[in-house]
Amino acid sequence: MTDPSPRVQLRRHPERGSHQREAILAVLDGAFVCHLAFATESGPACVPTCYGRIDDVLYIHGAPASRLMAGGRQGGLAVCLTVTQIDGVVMARSAFHHSLNFRSVMVLGTAQAVSDPEEKTRGLAAITDQVAPGRWDECRPMTEAELKATAVLRLDLAEASLKERQGPPSDPASDAGLPIWTGVVPVALSAGAPLAAEENATAALPDSVKRLRARHPAP
Amino acid sequence: MTDPSPRVQLRRHPERGSHQREAILAVLDGAFVCHLAFATESGPACVPTCYGRIDDVLYIHGAPASRLMAGGRQGGLAVCLTVTQIDGVVMARSAFHHSLNFRSVMVLGTAQAVSDPEEKTRGLAAITDQVAPGRWDECRPMTEAELKATAVLRLDLAEASLKERQGPPSDPASDAGLPIWTGVVPVALSAGAPLAAEENATAALPDSVKRLRARHPAP
Repeated sequence: MTDPSPRVQLRRHPERGSHQREAILAVLDGAFVCHLAFATESGPACVPTCYGRIDDVLYIHGAPASRLMAGGRQGGLAVCLTVTQIDGVVMARSAFHHSLNFRSVMVLGTAQAVSDPEEKTRGLAAITDQVAPGRWDECRPMTEAELKATAVLRLDLAEASLKERQGPPSDPASDAGLPIWTGVVPVALSAGAPLAAEENATAALPDSVKRLRARHPAP
Repeated sequence: MTDPSPRVQLRRHPERGSHQREAILAVLDGAFVCHLAFATESGPACVPTCYGRIDDVLYIHGAPASRLMAGGRQGGLAVCLTVTQIDGVVMARSAFHHSLNFRSVMVLGTAQAVSDPEEKTRGLAAITDQVAPGRWDECRPMTEAELKATAVLRLDLAEASLKERQGPPSDPASDAGLPIWTGVVPVALSAGAPLAAEENATAALPDSVKRLRARHPAP
């Protein structure tokens, strides 16, 4: 990652922002769903999808015929990839000072189709392990046909910024003492007890599931 | 809501999609953060924000000087507003058949600035109550200055579609019996125990906090 380009400079609430590599990677590595914005013939689109990271490259996958993946083949597709973690609901004495505690990373760039089969496989492994670390190696190996049926895009992590808010509400002094409850309700994407499929024949929970649950505890 | 326009017709996996009003509203009403895509001079942007709904209109708010809100004043801003709820991680015997259980609603349209103070106030109340139902009426009333310092956009819920996947993994018959754990790990955005602010002077938890927690139980 390089110095922030003009288009990822923090305009609003710069005190809530960062371009620090470690802080950005921590947000990316702690989630597994992003929202991806791109232009289509009929206007902007915003699509949720999984992603994976290897060093300073993000990977996303999809059906080869999808608009997103087709765009990546035609010289690349300008995208904004956003990963948001919601940490809490901040309740003040006025609606105006209500807020969310959150961390959100925005990555701008041109997503390019990956054609090299080895990089494609590495990218798919990264996406799988982003959700449940170590799952790729537990699975039955990918077939050639499956690899062909999956398109992968890469997006360099060169232009990225983090926005976040943490901490208690900040009621103005003039509201002090108003008899209205004020505080934070923590929220998090949490993983519950695994539910085995009917045809599951393997009693022991795999390490990948344990790691997925450990990454997403109750708030 | 009207019949689906060509640009919200379901292209990929139409069996996973819907234009049913009730199903779409259920997804919108069960969450409080959306991702909003819109075009900027330097490419697409994807921004997380809160939203509220009144009948067939969605409201979002922000700083009047933000690109998003400025765009809404200049004749309206073409947007794609996406609300995604992740319900589970679907683990198959192959990486290829891994999936997520999810519900995602995409709303296309032109977001327009709200100038009428009464509609603006109703919109802000809807956004506040979307997070914690009933919170607006518990709060100290909004001041004129606060209302002026907040911009509100409205987006008609006319072009919307739902995509979802639910249920167990669908391993192909050829993978049956492979000794690999298969099933679903449920996930959900969950609310934990409220943490009162240091200066909180109101012992009883308000109903809005109880409703927020009830809407977001552990998975």
